[in-house]
Amino acid sequence: MARVLTPQAEDFPRWYQDVVAKAELAEPGPVRGSQVIRPVGYALWERIVSEMDTRIKACGAENAYFPLFIPESYLRREAQHVEGFAPELAVVTHGGGKQLDEPIVVRPTSETVIGEFMAKWIQSYRDLPLLLNQWANVVRWELRTRLFLRSAEFLWQEGHTAHATEADARAYARKILHEAYEDTMVNVLAIPVTVGVKTVRERFAGATNTYTLEAMMRDGKALQMGTSHELGQNFARAFEIDYLSSEGRQEYCWTTSWGSSTRMVGGLIMAHGDDNGLRVPPVLAPIQAQVTVVKDGDGVLAAAAKLRDALRDNGVRVGFDDRVDVPFGRRAVNAELRGYPVRIEVGPRDLAAGNVTVVRRFDGSKTAAALGDAVGTVLAALEGDQKALYDQAKAFAVEHTADVKTLKNAIEATGVGWARLPWAKVGAAGETKANEQGVTVRCLVREDGSVPDSENEPGLVAYLARSY
Amino acid sequence: MARVLTPQAEDFPRWYQDVVAKAELAEPGPVRGSQVIRPVGYALWERIVSEMDTRIKACGAENAYFPLFIPESYLRREAQHVEGFAPELAVVTHGGGKQLDEPIVVRPTSETVIGEFMAKWIQSYRDLPLLLNQWANVVRWELRTRLFLRSAEFLWQEGHTAHATEADARAYARKILHEAYEDTMVNVLAIPVTVGVKTVRERFAGATNTYTLEAMMRDGKALQMGTSHELGQNFARAFEIDYLSSEGRQEYCWTTSWGSSTRMVGGLIMAHGDDNGLRVPPVLAPIQAQVTVVKDGDGVLAAAAKLRDALRDNGVRVGFDDRVDVPFGRRAVNAELRGYPVRIEVGPRDLAAGNVTVVRRFDGSKTAAALGDAVGTVLAALEGDQKALYDQAKAFAVEHTADVKTLKNAIEATGVGWARLPWAKVGAAGETKANEQGVTVRCLVREDGSVPDSENEPGLVAYLARSY
Repeated sequence: MARVLTPQAEDFPRWYQDVVAKAELAEPGPVRGSQVIRPVGYALWERIVSEMDTRIKACGAENAYFPLFIPESYLRREAQHVEGFAPELAVVTHGGGKQLDEPIVVRPTSETVIGEFMAKWIQSYRDLPLLLNQWANVVRWELRTRLFLRSAEFLWQEGHTAHATEADARAYARKILHEAYEDTMVNVLAIPVTVGVKTVRERFAGATNTYTLEAMMRDGKALQMGTSHELGQNFARAFEIDYLSSEGRQEYCWTTSWGSSTRMVGGLIMAHGDDNGLRVPPVLAPIQAQVTVVKDGDGVLAAAAKLRDALRDNGVRVGFDDRVDVPFGRRAVNAELRGYPVRIEVGPRDLAAGNVTVVRRFDGSKTAAALGDAVGTVLAALEGDQKALYDQAKAFAVEHTADVKTLKNAIEATGVGWARLPWAKVGAAGETKANEQGVTVRCLVREDGSVPDSENEPGLVAYLARSY
Repeated sequence: MARVLTPQAEDFPRWYQDVVAKAELAEPGPVRGSQVIRPVGYALWERIVSEMDTRIKACGAENAYFPLFIPESYLRREAQHVEGFAPELAVVTHGGGKQLDEPIVVRPTSETVIGEFMAKWIQSYRDLPLLLNQWANVVRWELRTRLFLRSAEFLWQEGHTAHATEADARAYARKILHEAYEDTMVNVLAIPVTVGVKTVRERFAGATNTYTLEAMMRDGKALQMGTSHELGQNFARAFEIDYLSSEGRQEYCWTTSWGSSTRMVGGLIMAHGDDNGLRVPPVLAPIQAQVTVVKDGDGVLAAAAKLRDALRDNGVRVGFDDRVDVPFGRRAVNAELRGYPVRIEVGPRDLAAGNVTVVRRFDGSKTAAALGDAVGTVLAALEGDQKALYDQAKAFAVEHTADVKTLKNAIEATGVGWARLPWAKVGAAGETKANEQGVTVRCLVREDGSVPDSENEPGLVAYLARSY
């Protein structure tokens, strides 16, 4: 059989490009760095949105929508913020056939415009916390782009909250980190994440503290899957977000922001994909079970349709492939490329014996199931393979994380995976040296694996890696 | 009691502004013509999206996402299209700190960029129909803007499809018109719509035929709630969207596009709202029943919470208001402003008699219900008021539509509502005359009320009105 994808071991970046193209997930748009997300890729994103949105709402945040266009002057009000984003801005200079009086930037993120409105809406402590989220597109004029992972325009959610105290703000930034982000990544995407705090150098522009979730891809590199920031009173001062406290004093709020994006689709591909294509975890999968008519024959189509309906009645998201004019082999290859967790092949020969064949994408294993047991077999496979994918990715991450004692050894180890060592052995100077060799400190965690409040806690452990 | 809103009869546009502000639905953004959609307003939009999206998918279309930025040259390829949109474009001239070689426009609609990709993806008749939809923001540099109704940036869905024949394209444009748009508007928004075809003058820029759904607002004006276009082979020729037919010939496709937007929220407000605020139809309402603790007392809070849970268990979307430190009157006014279909007041006095009070937003009627019957009373109110709102809006539209015989009488009639007369009595010359007086032909329908295929059918009836 002609090979469909470049094998991962041969050239991982090429494998990624191949799978994104062949599974029809996305392709480059006409303007440099932009992307078109095709239906197969967008369906993955829609499922992520649905799961993430439910969790964000359970954390108490409400969805809203703020404008795409931001006056350039807004960005300048927070010094670090404008410094961080100025090189990446797209600027609108003409509207309605005329040159504009003030240039407008296309939002790279919305702290500034949302800050302006928080200042209007918040009067007293009774208005706090104010918990907002929006699903939107943002634009960052990136020099080197890669579909889903880094693109000039991407889709994301960005949360923005205001609180009465630093402790409240921190608690909420951490609540989102764990209850929305980590929970979605682990329990929906089946991707183990290392959750920690960023070093000062790696912080979001304008933040006082950045929490991050880092995942290991199958080439040993790290992907930042989401971040949650404490913004201190930086934006509150810049935008006059203040409130009358219960003691009658005028105080600045403490704000947070947090984001997760279409990048997670890239993470999904690279954390689970194999040489045959995607492997989509069942909880996430837009199509969990693909019922495939091998070829028509005595009652095959009717039996397949009946099985489809029975699966649907049992809450399974089912696809139905009865395109018997397309060669079966090509359809099987496509189903593997797209990573449907389970494929059920219904053909005349099996059916004559009262059977169908259940194929698990996780390991390619095939099981003959009696027609009456097929639903049960599928449900068991879906449940089992959600866990199996997570466990496999976890084992891979453990295996490819080296405990080392020196920065030199750490940098060496990042050739094939991650390195873990005491942060005290790295420090700001070591970080600079690592950066010069294309290695970054992905995050800092406590020795027991829990998330520190800042890089200044003693005894922290650093994860170093090459990254996307 | 101090009046909260300007009465509709006194100043309808002012009433609209008031209700949008006081119910905290939206407010103007910092850049001229932009808008901030606040959580209360956005929740309405999210519900519309959910209902519309389900219907669009049931019509077979798949969601995708195309870039915000379009090369200016794309728009120029279809002559009528660029002529229609050029005056409304926002143009990006700088990216990443540098002047761009070619200016980029922020999408006002996506026919051109999607056409470019359809041309790549469609090879043969087997690839047809190609049915795509996207939920996105678009930008049109409008001179006079009004929140939700006309804004420089708005949210919408835009569908784009390609078909093998003109008949297929027409059938699909009409399928979306009825099964997605009309069904959502009538059965979710409870808004009666007049469905017809636009005159040549009112067509979408680049279309060969535009279908529309027009609704009457409570000031007698018309609001275009959605449109579905046949694009003929105009875009197919401009973007080389062609296919190999089953007879082996290379043929141009026939394409359609169709859109509905945040404008529907404006329609919802103006079709049902009254002097106390919004009235949201129960099927749409993000909060269908607001359980309100009048004041705390013997077991009041516990009884209210129990009722909330019982309603939730019965599939009702419930809000819970236990802010007893805020005056009850103010909370009741807010609930009316936001248009919750039903409010259930739980207070110590009623509760002592084993009762709660169920208040219907539709007509303000109050019913004492025994605690054990409260869920049933609420469910009956929700079911009844969905129909009641539709019937009331329908009766209003019928009452405010005058059957007239001359253009002069038609223009007069649009002072208070719509006019209906034979299209033959208007014609292109009459349409020009009406336009000069701020009156437009909203749509043409057949005598039996069904939707014609074009304005050229004999015996059509025209609806004339002033509009948003």
